[in-house]
Amino acid sequence: MKTVEQYREAFLDHLNSKLFVKEPRNLYEPMRYILQLGGKRLRPILTLIATDLFDADYHKALNAAMAIEMFHNFSLVHDDIMDKASLRRGETTVHKKWNTNIAILSGDAMLVKAYQLLDDYPTEVFSLLTKILSRTALQVCEGQQWDMDFETQTEVSIPDYLQMIRYKTAVLIGAALQMGVIIANASPENQMPIYIFGEELGLAFQLQDDYLDAFGDESFGKRIGGDIIENKKTILYLTALKLADEQQRKTLLQHYATAEDSQQKINSVKALFEATGATTAVRQEIEHTTRRALSALTELTISDEKRHYLKEFALKLMDRKV
Amino acid sequence: MKTVEQYREAFLDHLNSKLFVKEPRNLYEPMRYILQLGGKRLRPILTLIATDLFDADYHKALNAAMAIEMFHNFSLVHDDIMDKASLRRGETTVHKKWNTNIAILSGDAMLVKAYQLLDDYPTEVFSLLTKILSRTALQVCEGQQWDMDFETQTEVSIPDYLQMIRYKTAVLIGAALQMGVIIANASPENQMPIYIFGEELGLAFQLQDDYLDAFGDESFGKRIGGDIIENKKTILYLTALKLADEQQRKTLLQHYATAEDSQQKINSVKALFEATGATTAVRQEIEHTTRRALSALTELTISDEKRHYLKEFALKLMDRKV
Repeated sequence: MKTVEQYREAFLDHLNSKLFVKEPRNLYEPMRYILQLGGKRLRPILTLIATDLFDADYHKALNAAMAIEMFHNFSLVHDDIMDKASLRRGETTVHKKWNTNIAILSGDAMLVKAYQLLDDYPTEVFSLLTKILSRTALQVCEGQQWDMDFETQTEVSIPDYLQMIRYKTAVLIGAALQMGVIIANASPENQMPIYIFGEELGLAFQLQDDYLDAFGDESFGKRIGGDIIENKKTILYLTALKLADEQQRKTLLQHYATAEDSQQKINSVKALFEATGATTAVRQEIEHTTRRALSALTELTISDEKRHYLKEFALKLMDRKV
Repeated sequence: MKTVEQYREAFLDHLNSKLFVKEPRNLYEPMRYILQLGGKRLRPILTLIATDLFDADYHKALNAAMAIEMFHNFSLVHDDIMDKASLRRGETTVHKKWNTNIAILSGDAMLVKAYQLLDDYPTEVFSLLTKILSRTALQVCEGQQWDMDFETQTEVSIPDYLQMIRYKTAVLIGAALQMGVIIANASPENQMPIYIFGEELGLAFQLQDDYLDAFGDESFGKRIGGDIIENKKTILYLTALKLADEQQRKTLLQHYATAEDSQQKINSVKALFEATGATTAVRQEIEHTTRRALSALTELTISDEKRHYLKEFALKLMDRKV
């Protein structure tokens, strides 16, 4: 196995070799722009790792890795339109840099490109990968729709919220890994455990994202409490609402009924997260979800050394150093 | 062979059997809505016809026909957003009935669904159909981008315009037919001629659409001259500009520089189309394109009776009675 950094470099080399801009420029230039904005490249790296795990040449997985990254970036471009976001990875979003029509259409072309990047695989592999992409893409759309629906709902149940983030973000991590296993021609019994590992890890990562928005380390430069200011129904908020007594519930709902942008609002909402026990409950949920991810690894028919590699990857990711 | 009406009924039966709405409703309800708005169902019918031509059961082509129609409707939903259109087939467009975000996301899901509708074909067929869908979908996106680009360009060459409508609308007609041939397991040498038949027919149809907007029969209730009022760079306009003398050119450009909505503007622009010879030239171009479509039929390894069926279909379509 290579280091994560080595897989990332291999992926970036491949990405750069594919990023030529053809006509019409207004369709392909935004594609190039968003794809070279950076990011951790977590998903494509996982595809490469999964292929390498089963003793196949991970270079065979580069096009599928690119398909996964292309799909992910398609979803970012369209989500940014829907969220009216101005910034993505510190740079101007596509619909702000060009316009909404161009962002819609480039996004569409990226979704198609994601499929087309699979074209060169042998027929049987192509068929399996394409069907996974369709299944996953539809789930991602459903997750995004639930997310938008939840914005205008007063009450969102915790299972519904978990299902939403599972679809919106976790399934693509599972799919990235599953594709790698298929490309390696590994024994099919490995597909489900590696998929579950990815999906649960993705879920844990997203829950932690909610958690760190309120309780993270300010030294990374990210503002703490952004979700609270925006009245976002995160897992912390929903858990707090569920565990709150009548008075706590009233106060929390009041805070979330204002558009107030103040440190005081952040502080008192965070105090409620603590007082209701939501902070502890969410930390436990993250813990449990991570453990579910790791326990799926035992079913893989790989060496203990490689199992350890995946475990270390997961733990490092959850410490947010990857 | 069945009548076109019989193929349409078979397709509509299949469509209706597939149009159940699942959760989240805001994702799937717009999909059902746009798909049952009607339309001629020209593309899916062609897929069924192409399969039937080669002595295979056309029911085998229903899912591919549905994929083609699903893709077509995806492109309508996203195009309507980009064009800020309020009406589609006389009914409210998706982004007006719901909102732009829902229209973007439902459109995305329809594009994915188009792929997924191919999932049940045998692997080899699935692979061929999926790759045609990707190739075609990317061309349609490119065509739509050129179309948007042309709106803000003062000069558009006729070859560029033809290429734009070829991509934006004609290639999907070709692809619909090619898919039918593949599903029938017909000899591969039939794929290219039937594709060309469809593409040229689609091109001729679109050129005629431009033509009829200015010189069509008012009795169908459609307003004559809509493109002129909107200063659309149609094939008539571009040909007139090319053939115009200096004075005619000046007058035409002046008319197209105003937002005037009057019968007088329509009348004088139409008079310029006639006087420059554009009307005749465009009629000839439609004629030539239709003839190119028909001449591709000679290469098909089918009976003369079936060749005649396709020819009649094409001629009827160009008379706009289908």
